[in-house]
Amino acid sequence: MSDDPFVIFTPSGKRGRVPRGTPVLSAARRLGVDLDSVCGGRGICSKCQVAPSYGQHSKHGLSVAEDALSPWNAVEQRYDEKRGLKAGRRLGCQATIEDDVVIDVPPESQVHRQIVRKDAAERTIRMDPATRPLFVTVAEPDMHAPTGDLERLKTALAEQWGVTETVAALPVLRKLQPALRDGNRQVTVALHQADAGPAEILDLWPGLYEAGLFGLAIDLGSTTIAAHLCALDDGRVMASAGVMNPQIRFGEDLMSRVSYAMMNPGGDRELTDAVRRAMGELAASVAAEAGVAPRAVVETVIVCNPVMHHLFLGIDPVELGQAPFALATSDAVRCGVAELGLDGMNAAARAYLLPCIAGHVGADAAAVALSEAPGASEDLVLVVDVGTNAEILLGDRQGVLACSSPTGPAFEGAQISAGQRAAPGAIEAVRIDRETLEPKFRVIGCDLWSDAPGFAEAVGATGITGICGSGIIEAVAEMRMAGLLDPSGLIGSAEQTGSARCVPEGRTQSYVLHEGDGESPRVAVTQNDIRAIQLAKSALYAGARLLMDARGVDRVDRVVLAGAFGAHISPLHAMVLGMIPDTRLEKVTSAGNAAGTGARIALLNRAARAEIEAEVRRIRKIETAVEPRFQEHFVAANALPHASDPFPELSAIVPLPKVSFNTGAEGGGRRRRRRA
Amino acid sequence: MSDDPFVIFTPSGKRGRVPRGTPVLSAARRLGVDLDSVCGGRGICSKCQVAPSYGQHSKHGLSVAEDALSPWNAVEQRYDEKRGLKAGRRLGCQATIEDDVVIDVPPESQVHRQIVRKDAAERTIRMDPATRPLFVTVAEPDMHAPTGDLERLKTALAEQWGVTETVAALPVLRKLQPALRDGNRQVTVALHQADAGPAEILDLWPGLYEAGLFGLAIDLGSTTIAAHLCALDDGRVMASAGVMNPQIRFGEDLMSRVSYAMMNPGGDRELTDAVRRAMGELAASVAAEAGVAPRAVVETVIVCNPVMHHLFLGIDPVELGQAPFALATSDAVRCGVAELGLDGMNAAARAYLLPCIAGHVGADAAAVALSEAPGASEDLVLVVDVGTNAEILLGDRQGVLACSSPTGPAFEGAQISAGQRAAPGAIEAVRIDRETLEPKFRVIGCDLWSDAPGFAEAVGATGITGICGSGIIEAVAEMRMAGLLDPSGLIGSAEQTGSARCVPEGRTQSYVLHEGDGESPRVAVTQNDIRAIQLAKSALYAGARLLMDARGVDRVDRVVLAGAFGAHISPLHAMVLGMIPDTRLEKVTSAGNAAGTGARIALLNRAARAEIEAEVRRIRKIETAVEPRFQEHFVAANALPHASDPFPELSAIVPLPKVSFNTGAEGGGRRRRRRA
Repeated sequence: MSDDPFVIFTPSGKRGRVPRGTPVLSAARRLGVDLDSVCGGRGICSKCQVAPSYGQHSKHGLSVAEDALSPWNAVEQRYDEKRGLKAGRRLGCQATIEDDVVIDVPPESQVHRQIVRKDAAERTIRMDPATRPLFVTVAEPDMHAPTGDLERLKTALAEQWGVTETVAALPVLRKLQPALRDGNRQVTVALHQADAGPAEILDLWPGLYEAGLFGLAIDLGSTTIAAHLCALDDGRVMASAGVMNPQIRFGEDLMSRVSYAMMNPGGDRELTDAVRRAMGELAASVAAEAGVAPRAVVETVIVCNPVMHHLFLGIDPVELGQAPFALATSDAVRCGVAELGLDGMNAAARAYLLPCIAGHVGADAAAVALSEAPGASEDLVLVVDVGTNAEILLGDRQGVLACSSPTGPAFEGAQISAGQRAAPGAIEAVRIDRETLEPKFRVIGCDLWSDAPGFAEAVGATGITGICGSGIIEAVAEMRMAGLLDPSGLIGSAEQTGSARCVPEGRTQSYVLHEGDGESPRVAVTQNDIRAIQLAKSALYAGARLLMDARGVDRVDRVVLAGAFGAHISPLHAMVLGMIPDTRLEKVTSAGNAAGTGARIALLNRAARAEIEAEVRRIRKIETAVEPRFQEHFVAANALPHASDPFPELSAIVPLPKVSFNTGAEGGGRRRRRRA
Repeated sequence: MSDDPFVIFTPSGKRGRVPRGTPVLSAARRLGVDLDSVCGGRGICSKCQVAPSYGQHSKHGLSVAEDALSPWNAVEQRYDEKRGLKAGRRLGCQATIEDDVVIDVPPESQVHRQIVRKDAAERTIRMDPATRPLFVTVAEPDMHAPTGDLERLKTALAEQWGVTETVAALPVLRKLQPALRDGNRQVTVALHQADAGPAEILDLWPGLYEAGLFGLAIDLGSTTIAAHLCALDDGRVMASAGVMNPQIRFGEDLMSRVSYAMMNPGGDRELTDAVRRAMGELAASVAAEAGVAPRAVVETVIVCNPVMHHLFLGIDPVELGQAPFALATSDAVRCGVAELGLDGMNAAARAYLLPCIAGHVGADAAAVALSEAPGASEDLVLVVDVGTNAEILLGDRQGVLACSSPTGPAFEGAQISAGQRAAPGAIEAVRIDRETLEPKFRVIGCDLWSDAPGFAEAVGATGITGICGSGIIEAVAEMRMAGLLDPSGLIGSAEQTGSARCVPEGRTQSYVLHEGDGESPRVAVTQNDIRAIQLAKSALYAGARLLMDARGVDRVDRVVLAGAFGAHISPLHAMVLGMIPDTRLEKVTSAGNAAGTGARIALLNRAARAEIEAEVRRIRKIETAVEPRFQEHFVAANALPHASDPFPELSAIVPLPKVSFNTGAEGGGRRRRRRA
């Protein structure tokens, strides 16, 4: 026994003695080392590549001889000739251990490799997809043991991969015998192993299938649908794309779509068909872009809000339109894409919808919770996913609270006089000079500020077409900082402010950001625009406050802005508006499209599904619609930044002008008053 | 405790003390008494009716007072007024136990009631269907506990019925909220509980659904498809019907259909579509005949031979057409009817196909094994399912052997000069007078023999159209018994036999059963007909002998003839032909459509499915195509009844004339020689 060679695997550090002549792959399995293999040790898939490390390893007290592993064999030679093996690499299933050795398992040879998210460097996703390709050799049929080929395939999976319980649907059964014939009794199956129950053969190919399996993470928003095609072996994003949600033609916001479904017989069906068709087309186009065959796409994870969730599943969302906002189902949904009418991928692909947290807090919020993990946070974090509805999570290791707040679409540029969606030509950033009160801005599609030389030419092609959500937020916050807007949200007149850009419009004032010309429209911030933003931000703030009340706190340690839109909100401007509670500015971060990231995590890691399902059950839900204090918080939050809550952190960095343009109550308010 | 009233349930005899005031239904459950309830004790389904038995019960040493049960309550009164309660009956969920009592549970109130098969009085089917209606009251939605309605329904099923793990597909989810609204939060679900895994909600109805659930047992034959619609509560057959298998237009026998599939691209698809369409139409028509809504048909069990099995499942049967006759799958198939493209029933109905025993021994043979249970037989039984292929089972408690034998369609009237299927007008029974050598016969659709007065008028409408399988078997056997046919199968000439009905046809002889006239064709038994029957019966006998060899026996204790056709074979005539091994005549019985009965058993009793799946794995399979002794047995079995095997039981009751009409070898054979 002590004569057996000693083997140390890096980076895991797992070690032990194995009998001389043990293949490296077998040794890895015995010692619990994560070493991949699709072909099960037949020397054809090359997934089990390892790098032996020769010479002195003082750290391990081991000296590794050049012949610690067996010499190259014919299989390795053939593989190297055909495909090329990196210098220093061996096939783990071919090389046998002959003496003490240190063997490194490179990341690409690990099944459960960790992939580092570019958008949030602290977080890694452990690869553990539900569907994997497994290569098997199936016994020849035997007249004297006349079971079926499916049963022989199941036996092969049990014997060669330890998968003891397997099921296969009819389409697989149809392909089985031709594939066994073409593959000379060898096939690769796409095996889906959910948390519970038998494993399912989703598809199969003759021989060794090497083109890889893929999954699609879909963020199904009210306005846009975004899809990321990910490789299920290493998680890399092969392609991403987005399309408009075609349901928009039935209603810009969700409630008008619910109304459409209620008022028009079969309307819910129309909405369902439209979104499914668009998703199928999106799936096909993303696969085409990545050069991936739709058949290779065997999984999809979908996140969305509750109304989209129901409409997508073909459930009439009418109950979500009225108290008590009863979901038809809240748990995660696992089904086949065929049941969902989703084309553009393997017809047997499995779909997973994250659980909904509550009638107004959907699977998208659950995905944000999965991505941002507030329940694992050491400090108290407020996660705000800003969209038509804002989903708000507040929590730390002690527990997580969630609610939804009806912000309306103002933050997305809707209900704004010159508002538009974030698209080339839209003003996305605004600065107002504190002295001259003159604005400058940037439009999407052009990196220059509007006062920079060459801006007119640079922006020429698209022109200036309107103002998007982040643009209007910055404009309003800048107006407040420049003293053009008082805490109650009134725009001052030219007289009051001293800016000729403040122009009367009926009985109220507007601030002109951009004088239109023949080619571009005039873009001004009207008093109505301000009111729309005030309503939206009050709702958002009131929701956050409600959670803070429930938690019994007055402040949070940090704020995460999620949502594609969240990525574009300037933290400073958001705080000037009082969208979010007062916090140290550097503690306000953007998580990018956290819902989409959550979908990707659930796609690539099985355990994450169970994890978020358990977490969602633990989350304490607050229904804003029936909380009496919501209205109170809402009214108080109307002021910019707030009527009563102090904003000490904000005050420390940005002193806000104490102005008042209310002409009714106080004559002395007529003149603009500056503090600085 | 000892003060508690003592209750005895009959017929189970289960007994015990329960606290005073316990409802009878609760007492039954506590004591493990089988008492049905759909509404879970709400006094609305009336399934829990019981009959208390008052007075002295000396057998039990119990005196039951008139007030042993609580007086009628309002619920019972209302039920009685609305629907009428049989005299002496009480609702088990309403009546409470107040004193010692004897309570009878009538058969219709038992969940697992036993139904006695009419066609085989010894056998009973224990009702235990996989799908049952369950009535539940679902909690109101709660904004402060915002789970979904599906989750509330699952909780209700767990709390009210003890069903802890439940799943529901999307169509159920779509119906859920409208049903909860219409039913005022009460619904009846059709719950399918397979042996393993979670229970599945197949469908649901608002309120208490009382129209019952049904299942369809389908015997999918090569020639005909028969369906029996059964109530899933008490197993009664609501309606039965049959249609021709439309695949016949692609080939009369299975191998020509396999050839069609091989020769024509997409041919297998055509065959699949045709049979599925016919089955769907049959399902719809049987439901219509029974006045049952297709939606109420929630299960189907299908039995068929391996080629039909594959064609029905959409699997190319090409591998079944050549050695090693590899099945794509041999295990039982469980799936949804939607996957099978079966219409005419609930779209969520579950389908169950019995396992196949081997490449030539299908789910129909498994159904016969389930129905006839050779493995439970005390004596050695040979079960023969006679059809285009004969499936043969031989066994007793020691074990069961199975094989299939290629009899060809002669036994079904095909390949016979005047042959036709069993239909009105076909000669189905034949007798030949031993002295006059004149025949008489009966045709399907007329009870008179052809020599009876009034026969011509009685048969007038349909006429005499040909001869069917049982007719040709009887004709050949009668010819042998009358000395018109020698042991080698040669028909004697008029000279040799002394019958003018023997007429030359080319170089051979025919025996004329019926001289045709303007209205009906001539029906004669030709030498080719005899050869066809000899080939068929030799194959059948050789298969049986092969199993007997494997078992190491020379005789069997009894023979069961299964198959719709088996029901019409006369045991005597079958033995004269040497179709079956020599056995005491009274030990040859018919099991009717045993495959269909097996399908019904699997439909009505869940445990029977597990039972036959285990049994099929135990059955020892013999592949006749590769057993060298098959050919040997086949040749020896060509003679009538047999060249070498003695038939002592047969000889004891029917001495067969020792004649020989071979004109080549022996001149002396010319004259017909009679022994008796």
